[in-house]
Amino acid sequence: MMNIPLTVPGMLEHAEKYFSQKEITSRTAKVTSNLTYAEVAVRTRRLSSALKQLGLRKGDRVGTFAWNHHRHLEAYFGIPGMGGVLHTINIRLSSEHISYIINHAEDKVLLIDAELVPLIEKVQPKLKTVQAFIIMTDEDVLPETKLRNVYHYEEFLVNGDENFEFVKDIDENDPAGMCFTSATTGNPKGVVYSHRGIVLHSMALGLADSTAISESDVMMPVVPMFHVNAWGLPFASVWFGAEQVLPGPMPTPAILAELIDDHRVTLAAGVPTIWIALLKELENGSYDTSSLRGILCGGSAAPKSMIHTFEEKYKVPFIHAYGMTESTPLVTLSRLKSYQESCPEDVRLDIRSKQGYVVPGVEMKVIGKDGEVEWNSKEMGELLLRGNWVADEYYKDERTKEAFRDGWLYTGDVATVDQEGNVKIIDRTKDLIKSGGEWISSVDLENALMAHETVFEATVIAVPHREWQERPLACVVLKDEMKDKVTKDELMEFLRPQFAKWWLPDDIVFLDEIPKTSVGKFLKRTLRDQLKDYLETTSK
Amino acid sequence: MMNIPLTVPGMLEHAEKYFSQKEITSRTAKVTSNLTYAEVAVRTRRLSSALKQLGLRKGDRVGTFAWNHHRHLEAYFGIPGMGGVLHTINIRLSSEHISYIINHAEDKVLLIDAELVPLIEKVQPKLKTVQAFIIMTDEDVLPETKLRNVYHYEEFLVNGDENFEFVKDIDENDPAGMCFTSATTGNPKGVVYSHRGIVLHSMALGLADSTAISESDVMMPVVPMFHVNAWGLPFASVWFGAEQVLPGPMPTPAILAELIDDHRVTLAAGVPTIWIALLKELENGSYDTSSLRGILCGGSAAPKSMIHTFEEKYKVPFIHAYGMTESTPLVTLSRLKSYQESCPEDVRLDIRSKQGYVVPGVEMKVIGKDGEVEWNSKEMGELLLRGNWVADEYYKDERTKEAFRDGWLYTGDVATVDQEGNVKIIDRTKDLIKSGGEWISSVDLENALMAHETVFEATVIAVPHREWQERPLACVVLKDEMKDKVTKDELMEFLRPQFAKWWLPDDIVFLDEIPKTSVGKFLKRTLRDQLKDYLETTSK
Repeated sequence: MMNIPLTVPGMLEHAEKYFSQKEITSRTAKVTSNLTYAEVAVRTRRLSSALKQLGLRKGDRVGTFAWNHHRHLEAYFGIPGMGGVLHTINIRLSSEHISYIINHAEDKVLLIDAELVPLIEKVQPKLKTVQAFIIMTDEDVLPETKLRNVYHYEEFLVNGDENFEFVKDIDENDPAGMCFTSATTGNPKGVVYSHRGIVLHSMALGLADSTAISESDVMMPVVPMFHVNAWGLPFASVWFGAEQVLPGPMPTPAILAELIDDHRVTLAAGVPTIWIALLKELENGSYDTSSLRGILCGGSAAPKSMIHTFEEKYKVPFIHAYGMTESTPLVTLSRLKSYQESCPEDVRLDIRSKQGYVVPGVEMKVIGKDGEVEWNSKEMGELLLRGNWVADEYYKDERTKEAFRDGWLYTGDVATVDQEGNVKIIDRTKDLIKSGGEWISSVDLENALMAHETVFEATVIAVPHREWQERPLACVVLKDEMKDKVTKDELMEFLRPQFAKWWLPDDIVFLDEIPKTSVGKFLKRTLRDQLKDYLETTSK
Repeated sequence: MMNIPLTVPGMLEHAEKYFSQKEITSRTAKVTSNLTYAEVAVRTRRLSSALKQLGLRKGDRVGTFAWNHHRHLEAYFGIPGMGGVLHTINIRLSSEHISYIINHAEDKVLLIDAELVPLIEKVQPKLKTVQAFIIMTDEDVLPETKLRNVYHYEEFLVNGDENFEFVKDIDENDPAGMCFTSATTGNPKGVVYSHRGIVLHSMALGLADSTAISESDVMMPVVPMFHVNAWGLPFASVWFGAEQVLPGPMPTPAILAELIDDHRVTLAAGVPTIWIALLKELENGSYDTSSLRGILCGGSAAPKSMIHTFEEKYKVPFIHAYGMTESTPLVTLSRLKSYQESCPEDVRLDIRSKQGYVVPGVEMKVIGKDGEVEWNSKEMGELLLRGNWVADEYYKDERTKEAFRDGWLYTGDVATVDQEGNVKIIDRTKDLIKSGGEWISSVDLENALMAHETVFEATVIAVPHREWQERPLACVVLKDEMKDKVTKDELMEFLRPQFAKWWLPDDIVFLDEIPKTSVGKFLKRTLRDQLKDYLETTSK
């Protein structure tokens, strides 16, 4: 058999030939424009060529700092197209982390949205490797900026060769992309994506039983292109000739609903909070969402009620998926098997709200205290992954040793597996409460507490315990109007029938606020530090 | 990124875990049985183990000589599962060719259907490398046979270890399979399939815009498992958890119609002659074919009228595909692009009857007299292919040099390309008529002649010509009742308005029969030899 390297630019070349007239709708700060794949391919060739003229070489990292739009898509293919490595930078990170990752990746060039320039100006004095800044803007002239060695993206393209040949002398295992993932402690950790990994992941996205991306789709990735390559959807959409709607800077629920309606979007992808907000917008507005064949949802668990509302009220099938930065990201999809289609609705919803089983090309196992857990929906263990689109290290990072062992990625997620092989994520290993050799899920307790009418938010943490090693402690914020209207005991009584006795928190602490990370997740580590002596010092 | 070898047994392991209770319906000589993937996986592990115990080593070829049934499927995975190479032998070849390919492949073991044993007995004296024969049968005892070192397949399995670990220390480029393709002259040519090629090809079969094989499918490969791995469908069906209906020995149209009806087949695959015969059966019988979501048709061009009848009368979408032994085989699929769906029916049918555009993962170009042809539906050239499931040589065969050049497979097929990239196969290069530097398609002329009411069959061949190098000569067999009821001139008048003047045959020869190959194709070479002096010696 021939052995042809699987490469990222090869996917664009396919679209250029066979889907040349299919369109990308791109919302930027100023306008919403349409470009065909033929036009995008020419612009991408120019970008590759101009980057090469700038002196970039194979393996050099080029950072992007941008929303979802056609120029960012051109960078997705144009940077790997000249042998470079596309480093998508999360614009929501702190200044410290932004400068850290740019320096750690040793980015030579940055492509920046004009409206995000101030964030880069702030960190410029700390940047050690960046030699040029290319500003992506609809305006003819560059914004005022303190940055030096600045190029206007459109003028930069003009100097590129529209017949540039994408790099051919690469190994499919060479890096094509890079993305950093937040760590619970310390700096973000870098993940490098190979050409092979991205291409095989794209194939997995095209499978009929996966997201089934097709030429007839109009794909709208709401998940940011600076976050795990927008789940790889732009790559796959190009390869399979799907139209794309790229929703640009700060898309509000109203903007998303309008884009779906105007452009007959068939598949939209994002995290649960997006869809909760969109549902609210749909209730209030008058939008036609009948074109949608699916909502792809990942990033965190999708509430059953939301799945139900989308499917029952809006007749939009909900595709619940699971993955992470380290896995490009697709790992599992929640799908009913054909023989489950006839189950009662509550059983179906129960299956659908799990994370699902692995897509072809990924292997998983769940390791508990005594080795691999049984597939009985009960035994918990850490989820391990293996596959061609799973990372094998963190980029130049000591923390590689913890997460990558014996050829497997230790995800840090605790899961059960049902007899069909469906994974259900229970908790993060670090948040699990290890009580007397048994595990207690903080997430289950939190969800139960948050279902109480007086509770605004709740988190459950492990605190050290003399006898049991760790015990659960609940931290509860009450709704403003409910302050002083409920007691610890009442909440405990509420939990009691739902859990085994030894799962119940040893105590409940009322707080005014739960500290959170930059992406809105509970900062449990801070609470654990603050409350580590709680059980020893508090008389109950 | 991790780099995990893409392997054939890996696909079965996925099915074993996630689709264990999905079933295979297998029609053998005596019974129709059902096995789950869990059962097939155990039997396959036993087969791998027992083959290893027999002394087989990595890279050894094992031949199969069998119809489509579960035991053949076990061989599909069990032979590569212990590192061996699955060599599927076409049972319809001549004895000379059967012994040639077994010797050329150096098969160590043969797995043979009991009812096909006589064909192997016939060639046994010539076999140089085969050390054991394993007979696949539903009977408890072996048939009487002159073969030596004979095993009963079911007893053979009993000795295998049901917990056998499939081979892991393989390179994905290692051979997993092998199949011989007929040559116009000389012995069949061997094509070796790598693990990588088969896995990537399987992924392509699962893509939404390809055959979209899904867990919810009931797949019936009518195309023989001894022919290009039944187009790779058994591999993909296992990986994606589709149920399979394997139609066993000599399936008649009535048997196929019954299997479709009884087992709610969703996708059936075979050559046009199968579907022409099935249509006839459907007209006469009373079958429920409503479960079919598609008919996959390849091997030779599907007549428009058949596509139309399946879709209009039976509401079964028709998937027209193109490929060859050298390409595992899937190369192109004929699909309307979304913006063509609104075209008038005749335009749609015209597009659908072409061979279509390449699936993601395959590259093609069409080379005419002056390099790559324009995509204008007119310019003809030879179709060249490249891709990870395209062979790069014929196995230990001098003819490699002709077909594999500069990294491309020269298919020997002459094609045009329309502006959408759809390929239309016009002829074989060897059958094209090169007249004064221009090309004339023998196939177009043949089809035109065969549309005449008096003509039973017709072929058009190139014969040497002093001035024009070659000119077309038509060979016509009239229907029995039409003999002497039509003249050359009448047929020529019939052709005249349909073709440019210089395309018209120089003469028409009436024959009683057109010589054919073992698979029913016109043996043009024989006619060319017989008639090579025709134009010089015949006064018109």
